[in-house]
Amino acid sequence: MCEANVYIEAHDGMGEILYLENVDVIRPEDGQLFIKNLFGEQKFFDGHIKEISLIKHRIVLARK
Amino acid sequence: MCEANVYIEAHDGMGEILYLENVDVIRPEDGQLFIKNLFGEQKFFDGHIKEISLIKHRIVLARK
Repeated sequence: MCEANVYIEAHDGMGEILYLENVDVIRPEDGQLFIKNLFGEQKFFDGHIKEISLIKHRIVLARK
Repeated sequence: MCEANVYIEAHDGMGEILYLENVDVIRPEDGQLFIKNLFGEQKFFDGHIKEISLIKHRIVLARK
């Protein structure tokens, strides 16, 4: 499968925290990021995309 | 493989134009989007991500 895991930058900029696994869809919506995974779990995140690396199945978000 | 094809919204909002195939990495850099594919092709795009759908291997960008 070609989903990715979504991580959030830690507050201190050291490392990342897993936010949602097996993500399929991300799109900006109402000033936030709407995120949905393969199992229908949905989250809204108040931030932006910092990096996508599909080969590594990684998407990193940063808080606003 | 888990790369995606990157499309750009057409100017008239009707349909999309293929921008780069087999994309691995996207990240904001100097106010633009840096995009790199599996073959090392690199582009800078002056816009933002409109939608990611990994299962469909599709990332749609919109101009600023």
